[in-house]
Amino acid sequence: MRERLIRPLSQAAALERLGSVSLGRLVFSYQALPDIRPVNHLLDNGQVIVRSHIGAAVVSAVDGLVTVVAYEADDIDPVTHLGWSVIVRGSAELVKEPGEIARYQRLLRPWGSRQLDYVIRIKPAIITGIELVSHEAAAS
Amino acid sequence: MRERLIRPLSQAAALERLGSVSLGRLVFSYQALPDIRPVNHLLDNGQVIVRSHIGAAVVSAVDGLVTVVAYEADDIDPVTHLGWSVIVRGSAELVKEPGEIARYQRLLRPWGSRQLDYVIRIKPAIITGIELVSHEAAAS
Repeated sequence: MRERLIRPLSQAAALERLGSVSLGRLVFSYQALPDIRPVNHLLDNGQVIVRSHIGAAVVSAVDGLVTVVAYEADDIDPVTHLGWSVIVRGSAELVKEPGEIARYQRLLRPWGSRQLDYVIRIKPAIITGIELVSHEAAAS
Repeated sequence: MRERLIRPLSQAAALERLGSVSLGRLVFSYQALPDIRPVNHLLDNGQVIVRSHIGAAVVSAVDGLVTVVAYEADDIDPVTHLGWSVIVRGSAELVKEPGEIARYQRLLRPWGSRQLDYVIRIKPAIITGIELVSHEAAAS
């Protein structure tokens, strides 16, 4: 097994990777416990927009007040374990304006066939990312 | 775009899926904020074992006391968005017994080339999983 190197990504590179995929994971506290939901996302003006209709856990944690969440996306090869992971931390709030909701609903693919969902906007405060590269790639 | 159906997995099916992959994400609270780290895992006697050396955030949240965490793994096609996701919630603790640590270190691939790491054992209290299937597959 070859060893891999962990290299940090710049904020710009991390956001670019995040924007290159549509699946990620929303990480939040619910009833004081850490929880997670896979969701779809898009980047809009540097903010992470997600739709969620997987139960009320995410939404009730966010509705009516600003909540701190983390958002993670990655693309890591299951065999070589090479790839990248990006984590965004910031405040999340429900998008309330009907025009914005409609626009995001057009742009964001729903997770399943359930009708009820919400649009959540995450304003990144901290953006970190790593890439996992082979020693050979690191040396070249 | 075809709609997908979300179908729950049984606990047994969810654990089986989790055991079929080696990458997942440890979800925890750190300084009262939700956080996440991609890690490698293995299932041992129904418990989720992970090695972590990505900073002290995970370990200090766990060291010395039992902490509730979530663990998520998924395998979702980036194009069709079909696949599955499993979430385990339970208590996490550091493995302290040197023989156990040595055994897990042999079995578990390290995440990167850093030397210092810890072995964390998650005892599942709640196991949930979903699969995302097409309407055609659901009807067949």
